Amino acid sequence: MTLFNRLKTAAGTEWSTYTGHSFLQQLEAGTLPKAAFRNYLIQDYLFLIQFARAYALAAYKGRTLADITQGLRGLNASVEETELHVRLCAEWGISREQMEATPEHPATVAYTRYVLDTGMRGDLLDLHVALSPCVVGYAEIGARLKPALQANPDHPYAEWIAEYSSEQSQQLAADAIAEIDALGERFLPESRFREVAETFATATRMESAFWQMGLDLGAAEQG
Amino acid sequence: MTLFNRLKTAAGTEWSTYTGHSFLQQLEAGTLPKAAFRNYLIQDYLFLIQFARAYALAAYKGRTLADITQGLRGLNASVEETELHVRLCAEWGISREQMEATPEHPATVAYTRYVLDTGMRGDLLDLHVALSPCVVGYAEIGARLKPALQANPDHPYAEWIAEYSSEQSQQLAADAIAEIDALGERFLPESRFREVAETFATATRMESAFWQMGLDLGAAEQG
Amino acid sequence: MTLFNRLKTAAGTEWSTYTGHSFLQQLEAGTLPKAAFRNYLIQDYLFLIQFARAYALAAYKGRTLADITQGLRGLNASVEETELHVRLCAEWGISREQMEATPEHPATVAYTRYVLDTGMRGDLLDLHVALSPCVVGYAEIGARLKPALQANPDHPYAEWIAEYSSEQSQQLAADAIAEIDALGERFLPESRFREVAETFATATRMESAFWQMGLDLGAAEQG
Amino acid sequence: MTLFNRLKTAAGTEWSTYTGHSFLQQLEAGTLPKAAFRNYLIQDYLFLIQFARAYALAAYKGRTLADITQGLRGLNASVEETELHVRLCAEWGISREQMEATPEHPATVAYTRYVLDTGMRGDLLDLHVALSPCVVGYAEIGARLKPALQANPDHPYAEWIAEYSSEQSQQLAADAIAEIDALGERFLPESRFREVAETFATATRMESAFWQMGLDLGAAEQG
Repeated sequence: MTLFNRLKTAAGTEWSTYTGHSFLQQLEAGTLPKAAFRNYLIQDYLFLIQFARAYALAAYKGRTLADITQGLRGLNASVEETELHVRLCAEWGISREQMEATPEHPATVAYTRYVLDTGMRGDLLDLHVALSPCVVGYAEIGARLKPALQANPDHPYAEWIAEYSSEQSQQLAADAIAEIDALGERFLPESRFREVAETFATATRMESAFWQMGLDLGAAEQG
Repeated sequence: MTLFNRLKTAAGTEWSTYTGHSFLQQLEAGTLPKAAFRNYLIQDYLFLIQFARAYALAAYKGRTLADITQGLRGLNASVEETELHVRLCAEWGISREQMEATPEHPATVAYTRYVLDTGMRGDLLDLHVALSPCVVGYAEIGARLKPALQANPDHPYAEWIAEYSSEQSQQLAADAIAEIDALGERFLPESRFREVAETFATATRMESAFWQMGLDLGAAEQG
Repeated sequence: MTLFNRLKTAAGTEWSTYTGHSFLQQLEAGTLPKAAFRNYLIQDYLFLIQFARAYALAAYKGRTLADITQGLRGLNASVEETELHVRLCAEWGISREQMEATPEHPATVAYTRYVLDTGMRGDLLDLHVALSPCVVGYAEIGARLKPALQANPDHPYAEWIAEYSSEQSQQLAADAIAEIDALGERFLPESRFREVAETFATATRMESAFWQMGLDLGAAEQG
Repeated sequence: MTLFNRLKTAAGTEWSTYTGHSFLQQLEAGTLPKAAFRNYLIQDYLFLIQFARAYALAAYKGRTLADITQGLRGLNASVEETELHVRLCAEWGISREQMEATPEHPATVAYTRYVLDTGMRGDLLDLHVALSPCVVGYAEIGARLKPALQANPDHPYAEWIAEYSSEQSQQLAADAIAEIDALGERFLPESRFREVAETFATATRMESAFWQMGLDLGAAEQG
């Protein structure tokens, strides 16, 4: 079993709460209020900016040129993803200025700063474990929602599902799982497994709170 | 006007939402559900552990021995405060083991990691500004709630009000305000005021979310 | 006067010691022992790896996406420069394996870790000021040594002089100077000038020690 | 064998170069030029300020309250040691102002910033391993030099030898060795031993350079 799978198994409840969250069930069914999705998109942009910083941190934390180059790849990918995001948001009528003027929601702050602080305090394994519920979880969710898109090409959230069920997204997740395995061999004596599992479970809970924020902000907007 | 007062004025709405939160109105009136307060206390313990790390960060960030010694004082005070907290919690029937076994709530993660990340990313001013809604706000709240305690010595939250209305708490707040003024002269050209004001407003919003968490966890427990 | 020029003026002695170091006089005259240059090249490779980490740190320290993207550019450039360096070293008969197996000299450790620690402890201005004696100084040196290369195309250190007198190198220096000016407006009240000037002077002294290391290692090798 | 002893054995040459350095042989024989010792003392004061920051970093890096409290103890001890140092220097006619006005030598920068950067980049084990050549090495040296002091109570460096051969110094070293063992169990899979051994060897080489600095500055002063 990969280290990632051990972590996922140890956080069984947190993982299923996250990946099976009501926000996603509604998104899959196409019944998610547009206001919920739009607010989620805006916060996700603010989230990505902090994620870029987390990959920069991975490069800073590198011991070898290979470590640094790996962080650089993640940083490049994150910065590119913010540009994709700006385009997706434009289709939803949200401008970059609007997104940048929106205050970060506590749920956005919670997950992003948890990753950044966990990575700074700990080692590269801690950092990648804290990042993984996002990278791997989104791909897992994308794969699960793919049939809903295939059944209905006019799905209101087609683009989002297409992105996270894409070949590229699945590959990124596979790479992240392999990276965690490699870092585990380098940094993880068995006795520390529980500590790292706690980090994974906490990060996963922060992801659930992020979905919940989408629902809450959507409901608040609709009054 | 002190820099702190300028920050507070700039974040007028956030500050009044925080210091006048329903959690505090109920606490003042003595009507706050015990479950809400107990859950708040537990999360506040987890919060204090991260705050100790923030003062350690202040010592690390020091340029002079005086800076380092100032951080050390804050770290010492935080570690002592966790011990006070353990005693207060014991009176509420909560053991240290229970607190340490409780997962951090997203609202706890949000504020504490925001402070830690803001301080690491920025300078000593950023760090102290992010800490100040807690240090100064609690003293301001304590002073405002003092009459409720004087009117009713059997107030159910007597100990909490007594602590934050105490001479010592007021002095800590005055010191923090003076420290921010001193750091402002050292690190803040006027053109950067808006950036620092945004940090202050964000930290203040995270404090409001912390009160809300108390209410939500209390309501969830009571079913 | 640019902030960079104010810093250079304030560190007049340190700057002239650095840019007029005997290592450079010998390099210009073509009399620098090959052993000195070869040892310098090897340490410079180890130096570049840490410099890549410093640009990653700049990206991590960013407050805006523009800040992060700027750090990313520096990181990309540094990683590319290590590759250029590997090729230059290959011409001198030094393999990548040899360089990576060489222990870092105290002078290499001193400058690189000074930059990294100064940047982590302080703000983006501190980081860029600590980086600038390298980025700007090398271009200034390159421009000054250019006539020696033009007078003698078979100059033993032609490639090194060509690199640092190149258009691209001069542009990088101009960009770094502009960046420091912009950061100065953002982060530097006049009262803090002395503190930042001390950082600049220290970093410049570390650069002088790096040249001296080249001479010392060369002399030691020749017995 | 303790982890510390494994590290010391792996860095056999570096360790004997450090602990048997000519500076120490002359100090033991009482023939070390006073100018060398005085310059060493001044740099050692600047060194201690950075070491205080390193213990603050250990507290920041803590995962548990016990970790934080352990860092706090080291920080307290370091700040106290700077005060002892000021008194020792006063006896040598060196004022605090003089020490604070002295620029840090590259050898001082090299070791202190290496410790700080290694600790920030890595985990608590990396940090404590980088600190250990100082904490444990000085006690080992003190114990070895003790007979020289017992043979001659008027030894010119009596106070220095007394301090590092003291019960308290030996205990600090024993604690540091135990701490590294405990952290090794927590953070070190066998496969990472070589990486940590490299950190230890590098830190030890930086200590040798620090002794050499004493000799060089002394010689320069005497002209």
